[in-house]
Amino acid sequence: MINRKRMEGFKSFVSFNIALEILENYVSESMEFEEIKIEDSLGRIAFEDIYSPKDLPEYNRSVVDGYALRSMDTNGASTTNPLELKIVGKIEAGKLFNYEIKKGECVEIYTGGIMPSGSDSVIMAEDTKREGNKIILYKQCRQFENVSTVGEDYKKGDVVVKKGSVIRSFHIGALASLGIDKIKVFRKARVGIISTGSELKDFRSKEDGIADSTRPMLISAVKEMHAEPIDFGIVEDDEKKIKEILKKSIENVDLLVVTGGTSVGGMDLVPECINDVFNPGIVIHGIAMRPARTTGIAFHGKKPILMVSGFPVASYISFTFLFKHFIKKFYSINEMPELKIKGKLERRVANVPGTTSFVRVIVKKHGDEYMIEPLRLTGSGILSTLTKANGILVIDEKSEGYDEGQYVDVILTQPLEDDENGKNIP
Amino acid sequence: MINRKRMEGFKSFVSFNIALEILENYVSESMEFEEIKIEDSLGRIAFEDIYSPKDLPEYNRSVVDGYALRSMDTNGASTTNPLELKIVGKIEAGKLFNYEIKKGECVEIYTGGIMPSGSDSVIMAEDTKREGNKIILYKQCRQFENVSTVGEDYKKGDVVVKKGSVIRSFHIGALASLGIDKIKVFRKARVGIISTGSELKDFRSKEDGIADSTRPMLISAVKEMHAEPIDFGIVEDDEKKIKEILKKSIENVDLLVVTGGTSVGGMDLVPECINDVFNPGIVIHGIAMRPARTTGIAFHGKKPILMVSGFPVASYISFTFLFKHFIKKFYSINEMPELKIKGKLERRVANVPGTTSFVRVIVKKHGDEYMIEPLRLTGSGILSTLTKANGILVIDEKSEGYDEGQYVDVILTQPLEDDENGKNIP
Repeated sequence: MINRKRMEGFKSFVSFNIALEILENYVSESMEFEEIKIEDSLGRIAFEDIYSPKDLPEYNRSVVDGYALRSMDTNGASTTNPLELKIVGKIEAGKLFNYEIKKGECVEIYTGGIMPSGSDSVIMAEDTKREGNKIILYKQCRQFENVSTVGEDYKKGDVVVKKGSVIRSFHIGALASLGIDKIKVFRKARVGIISTGSELKDFRSKEDGIADSTRPMLISAVKEMHAEPIDFGIVEDDEKKIKEILKKSIENVDLLVVTGGTSVGGMDLVPECINDVFNPGIVIHGIAMRPARTTGIAFHGKKPILMVSGFPVASYISFTFLFKHFIKKFYSINEMPELKIKGKLERRVANVPGTTSFVRVIVKKHGDEYMIEPLRLTGSGILSTLTKANGILVIDEKSEGYDEGQYVDVILTQPLEDDENGKNIP
Repeated sequence: MINRKRMEGFKSFVSFNIALEILENYVSESMEFEEIKIEDSLGRIAFEDIYSPKDLPEYNRSVVDGYALRSMDTNGASTTNPLELKIVGKIEAGKLFNYEIKKGECVEIYTGGIMPSGSDSVIMAEDTKREGNKIILYKQCRQFENVSTVGEDYKKGDVVVKKGSVIRSFHIGALASLGIDKIKVFRKARVGIISTGSELKDFRSKEDGIADSTRPMLISAVKEMHAEPIDFGIVEDDEKKIKEILKKSIENVDLLVVTGGTSVGGMDLVPECINDVFNPGIVIHGIAMRPARTTGIAFHGKKPILMVSGFPVASYISFTFLFKHFIKKFYSINEMPELKIKGKLERRVANVPGTTSFVRVIVKKHGDEYMIEPLRLTGSGILSTLTKANGILVIDEKSEGYDEGQYVDVILTQPLEDDENGKNIP
């Protein structure tokens, strides 16, 4: 029989922005790192500032194939007044040249070669004429022309990668050029995921029931957001079993996500179980957001537990927008701004002030403009609104919505569509 | 001795846009796919349109905890005119209910429960008062209120994932909800990478020489761009060895990148080797781009060979901007637009018309505006311009550049900087 007491509904909803603040205030920056090879660090987050251990280049080097010379010896050279220099040797790749060049002398050098002492400039081979042991040149050379000078790229002590940076390919190139072969990155945040609900079945199972699509989706969303998912499977609506899995899972994770059973309805046992097992337990239950207003946030010590709807769209929206803030604090991450696009609304979108709305929209190119079509929604269970949409319009709680024709910024989730011929455009 | 013939320099440079066109015209869409579990498909590219195999939901289902009823039975109900319905049973999760409900009857139902035949609406438990075997209700119910109807999410035959889509977490959720457990994705493009140059050493080696930072950087860049790198190491400036590695590597790759030795200077043996080994060989050598004008494009049959500079920045720019177009064609990918930001130039940037320039810039938040500071460049070997920059301003070959104070769109490569307090902002 449906328990009347649990049926009273949410008394009030906490502002989404306040929920974010509370989450951020509870979470501490992670102190755990791994030291890994730079080749394995792509997409990981730097745990500390990484400094250059030396000047780069360490020696003055030629950046062309040609002849290293003393620039002062070329003064006055021109097509009408060609000058001659004597070739006194050849620089071997990567080797120091044991001779100081003197007035009227030059040395054959290749790209990357270390400049011989005495020289301060390189003339490109194609700007000279070679005659036996001599070159003839027709132009003056500036000091350090075609020379990469000591410390020009990095000086010893320069920051090469800032703490909180997401490591990209050019960071790996820079680290390799400095001979740094390992770096410290944050240990990946471990995120446990539990689905609750007796109506659920694994999506591969042939049994009766509703395919649990939320869990595989959130597992993938965790991977998309620089973290490591831990799958705790489906648990039925049974207090004992829910409490067991909550106790077991919290030990090995930095954040726990519990989907389903988080409303205040009859079978929604999760909130009571969380309050029994965790301390301090639930801090927020009910967030003024649309969809996903049944979202809750609990803590066990400093570990957050996100209680999200079992409905796929609601769980996707609440998980991704809350988790983003967790991960930002956990890693001290320097995040890229979101990919947004400005477009013109095709019809009015209303908002109840006090509520933050996440409206799924289709962004289409139409002539020189982008048109924004809000999708008509029938329920937070409608996954197709996420796959058919290519953007999310976030409406702040202070806003009453937007009128038809108004320009709004939309977070892009998929490529744009071309209104005219149905083809996606870049 | 430096070979005079090779020293003549580039006679002319092909327009960057034409180079892209030629590359795209040569490359065919890949016909090779893998069939993989949906959980493994994150970030992979859909090989074909994926259709819904059934209506979703397959049955009308309740989206709340409450009582399933005939909406017509509630006509006229209000707080002053409460109505009674008799509870004739309870829906088990995931089970069909074997009874058609009649006038004045209702059935207890939970979120996700299959609607009993005869019923067309659900009243939430909290909107009723239960008295033994009866509920009292104080409001009328609309048809399909709190009901998710057959095919509301996906209809059989709907496209769930379009060909060329990058698979994201919500796609995986949608596929799971439809019971699709495997999908076809493009086999990853295999990209071979060869560094050439006797002056190079592996960046971990303690020997003399210049650390080969370009190869680990490009290997990571390939991973960032949906493809699989194959590392063919460093080969010295030796025709025989270069030809050997070219022959060996081309067999197992979809695209080959050769770094270094691609100019027309003395030790730049790569172009001749490529023309000897590959057919048709070099199609473009010298592209009107800055940096990286020594870039070349060759083909072996339909397989492209990108000849890029050994200088890290030049190689990064030419590789990423050319490879992007290869991958787009290879996968028929529907790409996200690039993350760009509009800002105001802090100083003039000149461009030689006919040349496409890739200017590294720092984008800073300054009050309500973004300011764009072009980095002063001393050479294409300067990796720090990529790690210090957070954006690239691409100047089209038609443009003479931009004036101080002009607004330009910049591709973001790293997070924004805050001018006022040095802190990165989101």
